[in-house]
Amino acid sequence: MTREDKALSPFNEHIAALRSILSDEGVQVGADAAAYEEGARFDRGVAAFVLRPTSTAEVSAAVSYCVRNEIPIVPQAGNTGVVSGSTPDASGTQAVLSLDRLSRNLRLDIDNRSVRADAGILLSDLNAALEPDGLFFPIDLGANPRLGGMLSTNAGGARFLRYGDVRRNVLGITVVLADPEGSIVTLGSSLRKNNTGVDWKQLFIGTSGAFGIITECVLNAERIPRQNAAALLVPSTPSAILPLLREIEGRVGEYLSTFEAMSGNAIRLTLQSIPRLKNPFVGGQVPNYVLLVELTRTWEPRDGEQSLDKVLETALAEIWDTQPDLLADALFGPSQQLWMLRHSIPEGLKQSGRLVSCDLAFQRGDVMKFCDTVTTELPIRFPGVIMCDFGHVGDGGVHLSLVAPHGSEAALNPDLEGNLRSWIYEKAVNDFGGSYSGEHGIGRKNQAYYDKFTPERLKSWARAMKAVTSPSELGVPRLG
Amino acid sequence: MTREDKALSPFNEHIAALRSILSDEGVQVGADAAAYEEGARFDRGVAAFVLRPTSTAEVSAAVSYCVRNEIPIVPQAGNTGVVSGSTPDASGTQAVLSLDRLSRNLRLDIDNRSVRADAGILLSDLNAALEPDGLFFPIDLGANPRLGGMLSTNAGGARFLRYGDVRRNVLGITVVLADPEGSIVTLGSSLRKNNTGVDWKQLFIGTSGAFGIITECVLNAERIPRQNAAALLVPSTPSAILPLLREIEGRVGEYLSTFEAMSGNAIRLTLQSIPRLKNPFVGGQVPNYVLLVELTRTWEPRDGEQSLDKVLETALAEIWDTQPDLLADALFGPSQQLWMLRHSIPEGLKQSGRLVSCDLAFQRGDVMKFCDTVTTELPIRFPGVIMCDFGHVGDGGVHLSLVAPHGSEAALNPDLEGNLRSWIYEKAVNDFGGSYSGEHGIGRKNQAYYDKFTPERLKSWARAMKAVTSPSELGVPRLG
Repeated sequence: MTREDKALSPFNEHIAALRSILSDEGVQVGADAAAYEEGARFDRGVAAFVLRPTSTAEVSAAVSYCVRNEIPIVPQAGNTGVVSGSTPDASGTQAVLSLDRLSRNLRLDIDNRSVRADAGILLSDLNAALEPDGLFFPIDLGANPRLGGMLSTNAGGARFLRYGDVRRNVLGITVVLADPEGSIVTLGSSLRKNNTGVDWKQLFIGTSGAFGIITECVLNAERIPRQNAAALLVPSTPSAILPLLREIEGRVGEYLSTFEAMSGNAIRLTLQSIPRLKNPFVGGQVPNYVLLVELTRTWEPRDGEQSLDKVLETALAEIWDTQPDLLADALFGPSQQLWMLRHSIPEGLKQSGRLVSCDLAFQRGDVMKFCDTVTTELPIRFPGVIMCDFGHVGDGGVHLSLVAPHGSEAALNPDLEGNLRSWIYEKAVNDFGGSYSGEHGIGRKNQAYYDKFTPERLKSWARAMKAVTSPSELGVPRLG
Repeated sequence: MTREDKALSPFNEHIAALRSILSDEGVQVGADAAAYEEGARFDRGVAAFVLRPTSTAEVSAAVSYCVRNEIPIVPQAGNTGVVSGSTPDASGTQAVLSLDRLSRNLRLDIDNRSVRADAGILLSDLNAALEPDGLFFPIDLGANPRLGGMLSTNAGGARFLRYGDVRRNVLGITVVLADPEGSIVTLGSSLRKNNTGVDWKQLFIGTSGAFGIITECVLNAERIPRQNAAALLVPSTPSAILPLLREIEGRVGEYLSTFEAMSGNAIRLTLQSIPRLKNPFVGGQVPNYVLLVELTRTWEPRDGEQSLDKVLETALAEIWDTQPDLLADALFGPSQQLWMLRHSIPEGLKQSGRLVSCDLAFQRGDVMKFCDTVTTELPIRFPGVIMCDFGHVGDGGVHLSLVAPHGSEAALNPDLEGNLRSWIYEKAVNDFGGSYSGEHGIGRKNQAYYDKFTPERLKSWARAMKAVTSPSELGVPRLG
């Protein structure tokens, strides 16, 4: 269906009706809809139209209209997801329901350390609003999503080790169901403790809108760190990474907020792709693996108290003393500069060639074993593809990124992505008991794998819950 | 039905059949069943028989038999709950399924900081097994429950502020469903990150076995604190408690593990009931409210590092300097001794008279406001009843305990408990947006309030979920 067809399409009547509900600005079509049709990772579809409600009541009215007229809805928040979970398909028959104007209400309860917020608010705007009171929402991501997307994908991020995932930081939600009434349901509230039956909000967190559209939420806020210390550690061998994690956890305990691993390949390609990045390694020699370790403390330094730099130095010195075979080198530096290298990797790899990025998770003890297996087998099965793993070793997550350099034979193979994903996912799930989606979610990209790896019984549960929550077509992944 | 009737009951055939499945020791009747028929808070029923399987497979076989023969099942773990959620009713027709022999397997994964355990294992046994590796399960309770009960009630406890509830510390579960097959389902695993659709285990946590019996679990383990410091703080007025919480959170941050409040009434009655307890207050004068504050740190003290006692003293001195009107006094002491006073309160109040204990939760800013309202209105509505609140102010929880002294007119009123509960619960839920069960769960005691306060829509969701998981009669509360 082309845009010209759309102008003549039967949707014109619906567009007029929905404009009377949401105002002209609340319904966009044609060129104005284009930004909502393309996702963060080259996924592109065609929307029948884009709805932009400004309140839960408007979401309800818009959803009710679509359900009664059998128009499938794809909810979209910040559209920063990487699994094609927030964009329409190519049919031109789906309505995108964007939360980008549902961003008016934000109320901090400083005593409760919680914030009630519309689901269309950007993470950066939330944190800007909390900052004057010394608080923040502790999910650290490279992207800047809207809250509804973070909840519906249960985002994780680089400080999971300390603050957990989004699920852990949600106290309550308001959802709109895809039923003829566009029913509004409140689940949970500002309470931190509430054991009065089923915690139904859990069903809506991490399920990409399959059971309803999250329109408002109450979130836990944490105190902003006032001190930090960071270092790049070079493990003697990849097998030293896990003992190093245990040693550091044992020696700096409460302060540890990040334990990330970056493979030499990932760093090298990133430094090549993004020349403004500084190569921090002696003689420019990038090691096989590098760890980013960060300590944070939430109160202001006091006289007589050791700085976190000193705490980290002491802990590393103790490790050198007692287990000299674990740590080859340690580079200290301003936290922000070290993080820049880490946060540049996704973009750096994207520029380096054709990128297939798998978002895996394992028991912590299995991460490096898995990477080792892939490193060994990859050149045989996929010659020319470069293994560029990096990620959250501290919580078992790894972004297993595979790069086929521009112009290489592998890059030209149309089946490369499917073949790589199938091989990696099956090895991860079947051989290692791992997850094929540590934090990114299902979306269109992982639908086939959800279908394959999910027991039929759990699909039937999803169908049963969908039937009583949002029986109409809603969201991208089919969980039933 | 008397025990003599039972001997002649139609259950004899079932008992014989079940003994062939579970062995003689696995099925108990008569006097041997008595301990399983009485709960922790005077609730007593009559069981048709008691099943004591030793493995998930045996649970499955026993459940399958009961379902096929239409025998309702009441799962029971440590039987330490206080809402009559694990004991049979008076009909003599329900089978108690005890997990007390399902306690053979416990496997620590030290790299993953997780432990896979049978659901019948006692909390104390779990911690004893983890202790040699410097780890523990961070849910701190006065009682010593079995793990399955902790999961099915989503226990909270006195260090919630730091470690969260049970829900936050569960990675995976195995459940047996009450269907004709006694189906065994595994939900989650040892992974800390897994975003592959619905996180179904959440619906089994905190729902008292309504959807299935948890038989195994994988739990997060935390590092045992190596240093601690505690103090009893006397706030200048009850309204200073909340600002003190904020000040202390801001000044000791990561170290704060407990912020408990105890009313003077609760302390006085406890000291009277339990004479071996030492009165720690100057001249024996118990203040209006006392706070128990605890700091913990998970690593061994190092040279040049401030002790936690010093950190706490410094923080309190800063508060005295900057906000002299908040804190009237501070008593330092060995952590264990201060905790003994706090942990003795439930037993002390129980001995002081007829006790009606409400397990409420609020936004943190509302806890003291609510207590204040009740303190004002109680003497008018319930003369002679003493308000003895204590609990977890740091997370919004309060055990609002009401004591009618032995022999008082109020104590003799048969409607006292029902009238008190209705008044307190309605005020908490309707006027303050609070919860009538912060951490104890529903059980028989709160069933009527669940029925009253739960929207019909959520009950219909529970029925839908129950229909596809455990369609037969299972557990005490009816959630649908």
